[in-house]
Amino acid sequence: MNKTLLALAALSLSVSTTALAQGAGDALADRADHALENDGIAWDFVEGITTEVGPRQAGTEAEQRGRDWAVAWLNARGFENVADEPYQMETWIPGDTRSAEIVSPFAQPLTVDPLGTSASTGPDGITAEVVYFPTVADLMAAPDGSLAGKIAFVSHSMTPTQDGSQYGFAGPARWVGAGIAASKGAVATVIKSVGTDNHRTPHTGGTSFPEGVAPTPAGALSVPDAENLERMFARTAEDGRPIMMKLTLTPEWLGTTTSGNVVGEIVGRDPSLAPVLVACHLDSWWSGTGAIDDGAGCGIVAAAALNVEAAGQPLRTIRVLFAGAEEVGLYGSEAYSEAHIDEPIAVGLESDFGADRIWQFQSNFRESNPELHGKIAAAVARFGVSTSTAVASGGADINIARDQGTAIIDLQQDGTRYFDLHHTPDDTLDKIDPAQLRQNVAVWTQVVGILANEPGPIKPRTGD
Amino acid sequence: MNKTLLALAALSLSVSTTALAQGAGDALADRADHALENDGIAWDFVEGITTEVGPRQAGTEAEQRGRDWAVAWLNARGFENVADEPYQMETWIPGDTRSAEIVSPFAQPLTVDPLGTSASTGPDGITAEVVYFPTVADLMAAPDGSLAGKIAFVSHSMTPTQDGSQYGFAGPARWVGAGIAASKGAVATVIKSVGTDNHRTPHTGGTSFPEGVAPTPAGALSVPDAENLERMFARTAEDGRPIMMKLTLTPEWLGTTTSGNVVGEIVGRDPSLAPVLVACHLDSWWSGTGAIDDGAGCGIVAAAALNVEAAGQPLRTIRVLFAGAEEVGLYGSEAYSEAHIDEPIAVGLESDFGADRIWQFQSNFRESNPELHGKIAAAVARFGVSTSTAVASGGADINIARDQGTAIIDLQQDGTRYFDLHHTPDDTLDKIDPAQLRQNVAVWTQVVGILANEPGPIKPRTGD
Repeated sequence: MNKTLLALAALSLSVSTTALAQGAGDALADRADHALENDGIAWDFVEGITTEVGPRQAGTEAEQRGRDWAVAWLNARGFENVADEPYQMETWIPGDTRSAEIVSPFAQPLTVDPLGTSASTGPDGITAEVVYFPTVADLMAAPDGSLAGKIAFVSHSMTPTQDGSQYGFAGPARWVGAGIAASKGAVATVIKSVGTDNHRTPHTGGTSFPEGVAPTPAGALSVPDAENLERMFARTAEDGRPIMMKLTLTPEWLGTTTSGNVVGEIVGRDPSLAPVLVACHLDSWWSGTGAIDDGAGCGIVAAAALNVEAAGQPLRTIRVLFAGAEEVGLYGSEAYSEAHIDEPIAVGLESDFGADRIWQFQSNFRESNPELHGKIAAAVARFGVSTSTAVASGGADINIARDQGTAIIDLQQDGTRYFDLHHTPDDTLDKIDPAQLRQNVAVWTQVVGILANEPGPIKPRTGD
Repeated sequence: MNKTLLALAALSLSVSTTALAQGAGDALADRADHALENDGIAWDFVEGITTEVGPRQAGTEAEQRGRDWAVAWLNARGFENVADEPYQMETWIPGDTRSAEIVSPFAQPLTVDPLGTSASTGPDGITAEVVYFPTVADLMAAPDGSLAGKIAFVSHSMTPTQDGSQYGFAGPARWVGAGIAASKGAVATVIKSVGTDNHRTPHTGGTSFPEGVAPTPAGALSVPDAENLERMFARTAEDGRPIMMKLTLTPEWLGTTTSGNVVGEIVGRDPSLAPVLVACHLDSWWSGTGAIDDGAGCGIVAAAALNVEAAGQPLRTIRVLFAGAEEVGLYGSEAYSEAHIDEPIAVGLESDFGADRIWQFQSNFRESNPELHGKIAAAVARFGVSTSTAVASGGADINIARDQGTAIIDLQQDGTRYFDLHHTPDDTLDKIDPAQLRQNVAVWTQVVGILANEPGPIKPRTGD
């Protein structure tokens, strides 16, 4: 056990004792405990939006229906100042045709979905030789121009991790693979899905092309299909037979369309105090119904806000932000920050990593406000949530917190199975474990309740 | 413990003792033991055919490529009398377009695959109100004519079972649902997939229409999509709003095409004795690559035949039958029986229930040839295979054994996860557990070796 671990163990002990002392007779703690066993609000949200709206691709009429649905839901639940705050965006849609077919020597269809911002092959597709790169590093090492007329196949290996850290390790195959391949002359790129499952459900997600490089068609093969293609390359490694693929992807750019952020508030007793911002995103990729990404997150933050209110009107206002167009480039989060940059928030938190249990709590004020950090840590310990010395940086939906340099809390969810489902057709309601969803709501209720009743500055600035 | 269980326990004890006595110095047992840890033949087959051929829809050129591949593989492995025995069939293909879209009130796409023998909606699809039947029995109870102009949605509930018995319980939704609905006027039918998974991978499979009832379009929704549709019906149960679906399925009948059975032999020392027939099927549905259904089965039976030979040339010939066109109606199995009905086989066995471990052995000669039944039971006990009083009836690929009234053995595989994958796009190589596949080969090696070295009649007829 090293020094850091010893220190954490000591902290953990003091935390547990405090939690026991605080729990009794505390209306907020009681409400959080109640949510752990009984909360139906988060489920109601995610069950409702996945059933009644389904997929909510950014910038489309489906996303608009999602906003309309969310506005009605927030109003029905008693939120105040509910609004749909529109902004304009350039909108990409996946199109109707998606196929990848090995033409020779091992003719068979593969399952593919286009990546966000992929160009179209046109309805007749592109047929070309495939060149295999086991990793992005191998692709980077390919000589300039060497992929002229070819389809690049970029693979990788990804391991499930509780903290989701392997997304950073495996993600580049998707984030930059197509752009690098295009810059070396490739006519298209297919990647192994950035995912940890073995189902025929490709993982889409955004990709990007460097300045000056014309976007090419780019798709994700499902993991079993990518493995099959790898086996084909193992066979042709000796004899050099070319593997020919016909790829047909027909995404389109719709031009400028309207997207929007949905907001609502639990108004606090002292509206002069900066509000607590709790965020998620409302859009989803077209292929799933956006249950774990991120209907669950919106359900969790809204449920927490309502539970805090049920324990007594909070001191500060709690503002919920259901951001738009996160998946395709954080348009909503950026638009919200731009529109509200001059309205200070006290602290920002988001829920955008599925619906499995929270196991760790991080803040960016552990050193500047150790008392509050410790109070929160103590209060969530009974839900199996430890703390950490890592500094919270927030996620995609709370640009404003980073832009304002304000307090941020990360409530880390268990990501072990998140990348089985992330950005796939399999992101559907049945994947949500109601018990783990309730644990999220319980922890959020406790944390947001403490923050919303905190009179002093949450992240004191130097000199305050 | 009841009387039957006590009797089984006693049998089991005597079996174990015999097995221990027999095991030592037995080349066949040694070979089976070796296969348990080392067999690579079955994997080589299923890895090869799924990678190099992929899906093998009955009657198509893809099935023909599968036969060509299998013939080459059997020859390369040293089988004798390898042949592709052709027959003609009426061939159905799924077509390229498959979509189911809720138009109102909860507009969103659902995932669907056509059922075998489904009619086409035409490329423009059919839009109609959906009528929900929780079970086939509810559909049967609907008045004649009551479905005129409607799309029937037939659901069911299915539980994973080790012996696969819930296929008989849940299967009718697929087997007869569309035909019953069509007879009551439905313009199309969608069913909840007959499966136990929760992935967006529909389970296709054959359906049928009664004499005089014109086939309609018929599709399987994935389980998550069917559950979503059920939630929609729960919402409209009170207000009666119609749920409108646009269904587009474009299957085609190609007319008469050539299919075939692939056969090969390990020739025995006494060709005058009736052979042991070991069977599987080579075709698959188009949506998967036919790994567990039934590439694995062909790999298992072929590996067993080769392992038996490796232990010493058997007394009887072992004939392998890779049947064609099983999925769409047992065409290959029937054609084989018709062509070879006058050539008696000694015993028939098939492997066609995935690649998970064998847990039970059944025969149809337990009473007429208890000595041989007991010998086999004793020999497989060390692999965790119990016996049963159930009478083996064989499966789809050994019609000839039933038609000839000959001996049959069923080596029951664990079906607990079989219906997660059955007839879905997810039927791919990665689903096969190599260790369980080897256990299959070990058990098959032991059983086929005993049978192929049995001099007397295996299922003595009355009076023999």
